[in-house]
Amino acid sequence: MIKDSSELKKKLRISFTDPELFTLALTHRSMGSKNNERLEYLGDSILGFVIARQLYLQFPQAGEGMLSRLRANLVNQSTLAELARQFKIGDYLRLGSGELKSGGYRRDSILSDAMEAIMGALLIDQGIEACETFILAIFDHKLQQLDADNWHKDAKTRLQELMQGKQMELPEYSLINQSGAAHAQTFTVKCTTPYIETSSVAEGSSRKKAEQAAAEKMLDLIQASGL
Amino acid sequence: MIKDSSELKKKLRISFTDPELFTLALTHRSMGSKNNERLEYLGDSILGFVIARQLYLQFPQAGEGMLSRLRANLVNQSTLAELARQFKIGDYLRLGSGELKSGGYRRDSILSDAMEAIMGALLIDQGIEACETFILAIFDHKLQQLDADNWHKDAKTRLQELMQGKQMELPEYSLINQSGAAHAQTFTVKCTTPYIETSSVAEGSSRKKAEQAAAEKMLDLIQASGL
Repeated sequence: MIKDSSELKKKLRISFTDPELFTLALTHRSMGSKNNERLEYLGDSILGFVIARQLYLQFPQAGEGMLSRLRANLVNQSTLAELARQFKIGDYLRLGSGELKSGGYRRDSILSDAMEAIMGALLIDQGIEACETFILAIFDHKLQQLDADNWHKDAKTRLQELMQGKQMELPEYSLINQSGAAHAQTFTVKCTTPYIETSSVAEGSSRKKAEQAAAEKMLDLIQASGL
Repeated sequence: MIKDSSELKKKLRISFTDPELFTLALTHRSMGSKNNERLEYLGDSILGFVIARQLYLQFPQAGEGMLSRLRANLVNQSTLAELARQFKIGDYLRLGSGELKSGGYRRDSILSDAMEAIMGALLIDQGIEACETFILAIFDHKLQQLDADNWHKDAKTRLQELMQGKQMELPEYSLINQSGAAHAQTFTVKCTTPYIETSSVAEGSSRKKAEQAAAEKMLDLIQASGL
């Protein structure tokens, strides 16, 4: 039995001029051609933008690489599904009989898509500002958590702490090249860790900057390796 | 010699409260740590959102797949570089001596990044609305072109016209399965063309819908194959 979606609106603290849009956002494609796919596409784009801008403002020292990483950590299927579960969105989904039987209302992809579709519906019905307020409210805890985590620390510190947490030897940095005239030198530094075989190499206008950049790349490599 | 960037602002029909932000948007990372990378990250996200919403409104019949395809066709490095060249943005870029010598102001990636960074700077300085107006203005011609192209036509028609344009035999559709109770049948259709070896298979709640979905998938396959 699908629950009454006006309950869900209250929990989410959102309202709609056109309640049909909210119903559409909760309608999976297994229900037919009138489904939430277009709204999900739209929600995905406003979500990406709102979080990007928030991170830009919240982390004035973070480079583009770190901002992208932070966003990828926040905005992904499993985080969105987790948020959807907090609001028990599965109880309100309209699914076709096949999906219903196979427990589609528990599936990450379906929950995450519905969450994005709600954002898209809110954007169309209430405009950017209301949609941004909603997104920042449901991500509030996770955004605050970022401050509490070590994201404000520099890359070398974060890499060192990661190694210490795994009780591994610390990363090593070696200068492998130094070129250019005295006032415009370029330093090339290699970073190795006992954690993964690949080493990272980066340039910078000072040895310190090159080391930070190499540590940043190493953190990327470690994340990409899924370790 | 870098040209005076206030000229560029006039050409782009934008103004800044903080002119430093505009200068930063034109500053490549080869100039040092104060560069346009953070603004580019921000610009990329607002651009993606503005175009996504515009396409959603402009193509009320288009499914999520087609909207994503349209956006990918509009928002990519080569389109952004083309727009940057129209405004001669290369003449205003601040590049390090290495990039300057190697002709960085002509490179697609650098031009495209600067274009996005300008959008990011405008967002921070003038807000969402001004930024959206700017983006829609510079993409206006390309967005209108989409209407003139065959994007409003259904997938079967577009696929047929593509084949005719190549003077090839028309695609063939065959029903390969039909299942479910009378009021909730699922039709499975296979589409083959003489163009590529792979065939596409799709389901739908009617034979016609399944054919359209199979044609859509075939268009995707043809695009992915780069033919």
